[in-house]
Amino acid sequence: MGELRIGVVGYGMMGRAHCYGYRVAPMIRTLPVTPVVTVMSGRDAAAVAKAAAACGVPQTLTDWRELVARDDVDVVDICTPPGTHAEIAEAAAATGKAVLCEKPLAVSYAQAASAARAVAGVRNAVGFNYRRLPAVALMRRMIDDGAVGDVRLWRATWLSDEFTDPTTPYDWRFDRAMGGTTIADLGCHLIDMALWMAGEIADVCAQSQTFITKRPLFDGGVTEVGEADVTVDDASSALIRFASGARGTVEMARSAVRRPCDFTVEVNGSEGTLLFDYARLNELWYGSAHSDPSRYGLTRIRAEHLSHPYAADWWPIGQGVGYGSSFANQVADLLENWPDGPWTPDFAQGVAVQAVCEAMERSAASGRWVATREVAG
Amino acid sequence: MGELRIGVVGYGMMGRAHCYGYRVAPMIRTLPVTPVVTVMSGRDAAAVAKAAAACGVPQTLTDWRELVARDDVDVVDICTPPGTHAEIAEAAAATGKAVLCEKPLAVSYAQAASAARAVAGVRNAVGFNYRRLPAVALMRRMIDDGAVGDVRLWRATWLSDEFTDPTTPYDWRFDRAMGGTTIADLGCHLIDMALWMAGEIADVCAQSQTFITKRPLFDGGVTEVGEADVTVDDASSALIRFASGARGTVEMARSAVRRPCDFTVEVNGSEGTLLFDYARLNELWYGSAHSDPSRYGLTRIRAEHLSHPYAADWWPIGQGVGYGSSFANQVADLLENWPDGPWTPDFAQGVAVQAVCEAMERSAASGRWVATREVAG
Amino acid sequence: MGELRIGVVGYGMMGRAHCYGYRVAPMIRTLPVTPVVTVMSGRDAAAVAKAAAACGVPQTLTDWRELVARDDVDVVDICTPPGTHAEIAEAAAATGKAVLCEKPLAVSYAQAASAARAVAGVRNAVGFNYRRLPAVALMRRMIDDGAVGDVRLWRATWLSDEFTDPTTPYDWRFDRAMGGTTIADLGCHLIDMALWMAGEIADVCAQSQTFITKRPLFDGGVTEVGEADVTVDDASSALIRFASGARGTVEMARSAVRRPCDFTVEVNGSEGTLLFDYARLNELWYGSAHSDPSRYGLTRIRAEHLSHPYAADWWPIGQGVGYGSSFANQVADLLENWPDGPWTPDFAQGVAVQAVCEAMERSAASGRWVATREVAG
Amino acid sequence: MGELRIGVVGYGMMGRAHCYGYRVAPMIRTLPVTPVVTVMSGRDAAAVAKAAAACGVPQTLTDWRELVARDDVDVVDICTPPGTHAEIAEAAAATGKAVLCEKPLAVSYAQAASAARAVAGVRNAVGFNYRRLPAVALMRRMIDDGAVGDVRLWRATWLSDEFTDPTTPYDWRFDRAMGGTTIADLGCHLIDMALWMAGEIADVCAQSQTFITKRPLFDGGVTEVGEADVTVDDASSALIRFASGARGTVEMARSAVRRPCDFTVEVNGSEGTLLFDYARLNELWYGSAHSDPSRYGLTRIRAEHLSHPYAADWWPIGQGVGYGSSFANQVADLLENWPDGPWTPDFAQGVAVQAVCEAMERSAASGRWVATREVAG
Repeated sequence: MGELRIGVVGYGMMGRAHCYGYRVAPMIRTLPVTPVVTVMSGRDAAAVAKAAAACGVPQTLTDWRELVARDDVDVVDICTPPGTHAEIAEAAAATGKAVLCEKPLAVSYAQAASAARAVAGVRNAVGFNYRRLPAVALMRRMIDDGAVGDVRLWRATWLSDEFTDPTTPYDWRFDRAMGGTTIADLGCHLIDMALWMAGEIADVCAQSQTFITKRPLFDGGVTEVGEADVTVDDASSALIRFASGARGTVEMARSAVRRPCDFTVEVNGSEGTLLFDYARLNELWYGSAHSDPSRYGLTRIRAEHLSHPYAADWWPIGQGVGYGSSFANQVADLLENWPDGPWTPDFAQGVAVQAVCEAMERSAASGRWVATREVAG
Repeated sequence: MGELRIGVVGYGMMGRAHCYGYRVAPMIRTLPVTPVVTVMSGRDAAAVAKAAAACGVPQTLTDWRELVARDDVDVVDICTPPGTHAEIAEAAAATGKAVLCEKPLAVSYAQAASAARAVAGVRNAVGFNYRRLPAVALMRRMIDDGAVGDVRLWRATWLSDEFTDPTTPYDWRFDRAMGGTTIADLGCHLIDMALWMAGEIADVCAQSQTFITKRPLFDGGVTEVGEADVTVDDASSALIRFASGARGTVEMARSAVRRPCDFTVEVNGSEGTLLFDYARLNELWYGSAHSDPSRYGLTRIRAEHLSHPYAADWWPIGQGVGYGSSFANQVADLLENWPDGPWTPDFAQGVAVQAVCEAMERSAASGRWVATREVAG
Repeated sequence: MGELRIGVVGYGMMGRAHCYGYRVAPMIRTLPVTPVVTVMSGRDAAAVAKAAAACGVPQTLTDWRELVARDDVDVVDICTPPGTHAEIAEAAAATGKAVLCEKPLAVSYAQAASAARAVAGVRNAVGFNYRRLPAVALMRRMIDDGAVGDVRLWRATWLSDEFTDPTTPYDWRFDRAMGGTTIADLGCHLIDMALWMAGEIADVCAQSQTFITKRPLFDGGVTEVGEADVTVDDASSALIRFASGARGTVEMARSAVRRPCDFTVEVNGSEGTLLFDYARLNELWYGSAHSDPSRYGLTRIRAEHLSHPYAADWWPIGQGVGYGSSFANQVADLLENWPDGPWTPDFAQGVAVQAVCEAMERSAASGRWVATREVAG
Repeated sequence: MGELRIGVVGYGMMGRAHCYGYRVAPMIRTLPVTPVVTVMSGRDAAAVAKAAAACGVPQTLTDWRELVARDDVDVVDICTPPGTHAEIAEAAAATGKAVLCEKPLAVSYAQAASAARAVAGVRNAVGFNYRRLPAVALMRRMIDDGAVGDVRLWRATWLSDEFTDPTTPYDWRFDRAMGGTTIADLGCHLIDMALWMAGEIADVCAQSQTFITKRPLFDGGVTEVGEADVTVDDASSALIRFASGARGTVEMARSAVRRPCDFTVEVNGSEGTLLFDYARLNELWYGSAHSDPSRYGLTRIRAEHLSHPYAADWWPIGQGVGYGSSFANQVADLLENWPDGPWTPDFAQGVAVQAVCEAMERSAASGRWVATREVAG
């Protein structure tokens, strides 16, 4: 069995999470190739060397262009800040390499669409990893199987406290051009799940707010040298009209004290309700309109039964998986039929998500409902 | 100690709940008067007689106008469908009697405002009973005491399955002129809590949807004789801008399968988070930004400590109260200083709530943000 | 419809809870008589006067013997400390009055058995009120209906922090002769539910511990005058062998910090599991071995469906009841067929519970398994 | 950096979980050596080949004796049924290799003690992996730091449905000589945590029950050829006296329908309460007697804060870990100072656990309290 050589661009938390995925995937799924991360790149030579050592990656580079150009790389895996994704993806695709890109695909719809056009000739995917959690995948499967009937209401919230401390220094996350907004950062996952579970989004109406508008600026991370303007939203929310006639709401906030990274997704359909709470990620709540009324309530499904998505790959029921499993599942899904595909979700899906996010941005800026097709043309 | 004589207009579930409140209030609080329900009215003589017997009410009437005119009634308590509230309240106030009116105050802002003007000379209150739950009252008190700092985000949902079954026959609840909308019926409680906890609402943007647009019509509740058009929303949601700069979302739905009457309210402030879930109504979740980070999380406060609102009136800690307690607490609060007041929340608050609800209706109809002052002039 | 006149012996929290029950019962159930508390007794004249006023009881006495002897009392309701129950019950029965006695029936098996013999000729019942919670009653009904098959395992814990503070002054609760042990006080409820749900208990093996062996003694509740020895257990636990072959465990503790009054009961049978947690008293968790395995998990039944015990008496689904409801339900159950019965659970059940509790006491003292029939002869 | 060569004996679920641990450990912790599983053994050549391929293990053997004897193995990792542990451990130690052995250490105290003596000269450890869950490790650390004061009560339950289906065929798990009892299989984890958190156990009193006493016997897993007697318990429970004066209860059952593998551990001390529920393994509940009473309740600590055990090795807060993390943490802990130690928990701890388990077995058989020192001499 041959090796599939991965070059990881970026050495932060996401780079590490992806390396975990490559390492674990062959243990949970029989794959036609063994993924091996051959090289990792990052601008800070010492930092990338340290990360690469931890991840068992033998080679490092400080210029992603070199990584993209190398012969010993089959797949370019992009784990850098969002503002850099499109350019790297385009360069990688130009060499014919497969591209896996972290979310959000870009910091604008135009950038995302350009990247999607560029990668059309190679295998391409976007890292919407939460789809790969067993309970989330089960939720989608149950919707497809009719467990809730016609989707009528869809709601999701993502609450984090990442931006609650006003002493947190300015960095790329607060810069719209580099990191993208809260709508993009947190919202893109929720919108991906919305599109995946409930179909096309026709229109949105959003509001955004920045509660802490300036952040201390540090020179080399040590000496405070002033303040910088925050150009992203701390929190946003939106109303959603799905093309199907379903209605939705979504909220994403980095202003919620003692809410580390709590997201929930609920669907109410004509025949049932499904509810996922990421804080208890191995569970899925379900109620059917047709269940025995004397048992009225929701069932807390332990989403680890052998019949459930991903479950047979991992541990016996009752032994939960964690966040990391989504990355191993992602690798396993993408490589299971290598070099065949399909790879999903692909850049086209990333573009569709970006269209909705950008419609939310425009709506928040203009104070009116915005159709997704205004963005996507 | 004298009696305070109550006339209850309406004999349905709310009439019964109010009678429970009058009966229990003297056991939980020392009151200057003993409330006694002397008469109950309703158009169906047999039904009102049955309800009155269950509630220990000695006299019944079929015409509320007679009840309002009686000498042995000090307080008129209005528990009829919303479309009838204003007229009854106005008639009661004209006789100088105190008025307690169920929510929503009316089916339009104009109606509500008219009623408020009419009752200005008598003691008046609106039955926003959920405020009187210990955990909700504690939530408000903690916000006032600075436990969350400046309110930044406020979110609430109310999920019910009342309208999920398409075979449910048409009745007044589906008639906008009589029962009012889902925005009014469920939303008014949430908006009352929003105003109470987070202050004035400047603008809203809403959407509404009716998924089941026709309902079977029965003659005398027996023979199906056709279909009637539903003129209310099954589900609505809205974005909120508070005057303070805080932002919010609210959703109210009667389309959520196996969600009996689940409402949640969460506040994220600059210094903390508070979360209430009605399904577990004796609990309040709290996290402070200043708590020991090695204890990071939310505390599930058992809102039954002697120091908590209403707690000393009821049972020892660990012995929860239920929905009914809110009605006994309401009576105790209103009568504690009788004939003095203040009575709160009064009709003016009911009007303020109605203004927001009507702004949501207008927004849903027009597809644009609507300022509360457009409604309230 | 006539009145049924109740005399309540004792004016503490339980006296008040019982008065609440009498007042509310007629509102939730159609009864052939209206219960009216005509008199309340207690040794402290001022205290009983205050309690009676709060409860709307017109007359008070300082000697329970006078209460028992009165002509205007049909039912003697005993809400005093356990050590006094038997004597009062015997005196009441001697006058031909019906007797409702709080739990535990007595402070010894012999006392309980004597009381049971004495009341055999009158209506008699023991206040095992937790049976009357909707979810607990539903649990029993589902067991009877075969929802769990043959009961195999039964476990219960009752965790309170009542005795955790070493500065809590000595009072009757720490005196074995007056208040009874933790086994009796908390355990008797659990054992009542065990016998009711899983049948006869053949043998027990228990351990008891007193962690705080002395308590400060106050003169008149003001001046500390020394210390008194605690003669009850702070915490006990036991293994149980049911006559059916089922096995169980039970623990009762007043030594659990920040556990106000948390009890849980779980049954695992050949075909299913049922779980009740008093902290969320309107819920019952259920899983059937025959449910669809792809929905593997427990259902959180909202024990408020119209089909559930007591539910139709109270509020619509989603509107929970509280602790107090158990007392109203108790009165309604006892009086529904007055003057006919049956009254259940009666003193005979109280004696059966006491036999198990005393077997636990003997086992804890002797360090060996004790058969219930060693106690009960 | 050199490699540390591991030979894994056994290819079942535990063998796979250990291989996961070796693969992931270097990514989460800086280690002085890189663990590499060089060989895996198992009696079924095809099955072991398949498992080895999945785990990326290059060589397989059908005889563990060959594995133990190999030069390219530094550590023998024993993942076979309990009845075989001691012999393999002794053989491995005889070659001077380090030994990591799955729990329970043996099927009798004598066997365990013999193994412990045999491995005394080499690095040795027992796979009590649940200690390595962040929340469990945090629980222990908080106890050590005085968060609960003196431990008074300790309780644990382990509920599984592994043995609920009477059609489950007979295999080694039902054979006392090979698989060990439910007391040993599930109880040993709980007893390990009890000893670790609350100290020495002086005496136990236990009961055991087998509800399904015969199991169908299959020839080659295909044709039913009769029935075999089950020689292990389905469920057991015990009372515990700690040497400190603390008291405890423990229950372990494989007879609990729709309870996949749910264990809970709670400690009540003089100053606080700690509670862990494995079904939500990234949480730890804590209440201090000294917390603000107006915040009375338990805090749901998200056991992922950077200050918490293992947390900094994994993901940002809010991104939970799963069961697998315990195996990676185990490897990281054992190898962090390689070739130095200490290795903990070692075989001596395994023996101490086995002594308590065997005391429980003897107590269940004899119906009396058994001192641990009766077993351990």
